[in-house]
Amino acid sequence: MPEFMDVHNHMQGITAEALKAAHEADLAAQGEENVIFKSAWADPSTGKVFCLSEAPSADAVLRVHERTGHAADEIHHITLEV
Amino acid sequence: MPEFMDVHNHMQGITAEALKAAHEADLAAQGEENVIFKSAWADPSTGKVFCLSEAPSADAVLRVHERTGHAADEIHHITLEV
Repeated sequence: MPEFMDVHNHMQGITAEALKAAHEADLAAQGEENVIFKSAWADPSTGKVFCLSEAPSADAVLRVHERTGHAADEIHHITLEV
Repeated sequence: MPEFMDVHNHMQGITAEALKAAHEADLAAQGEENVIFKSAWADPSTGKVFCLSEAPSADAVLRVHERTGHAADEIHHITLEV
């Protein structure tokens, strides 16, 4: 399945609890779009959150994030990995 | 050890061979700075490359990438992960 990295640019000050809650909301909603969220990494000081997922399309990833209330600012189709 | 995500913004058209060569150059140089590069994900269409590492500091990561000829555009200190 295609892999994606989406990026949130404005999550300054995000807490461990908030990241966990957001990720759990995504996991609860991902089945509707056949998305599998794998990992998320956050830097509360720069406000960046990076989410790695497998999904049928970029739009499917974006729809899950929109439904759970934290729309992504960027999405990238990962075709190379080392 | 602290974890970092660095981002390259202008790698449009990067090939599998070029990503592998860049990553191997980083692995060969990382010991000088006590950095451990863990994974790199690339989207040749948007030109983004995301590199996850463990390192004593952000500057240590940036120095390795500079020495191997592909300076990063951004670096983020990952303090939260799910």
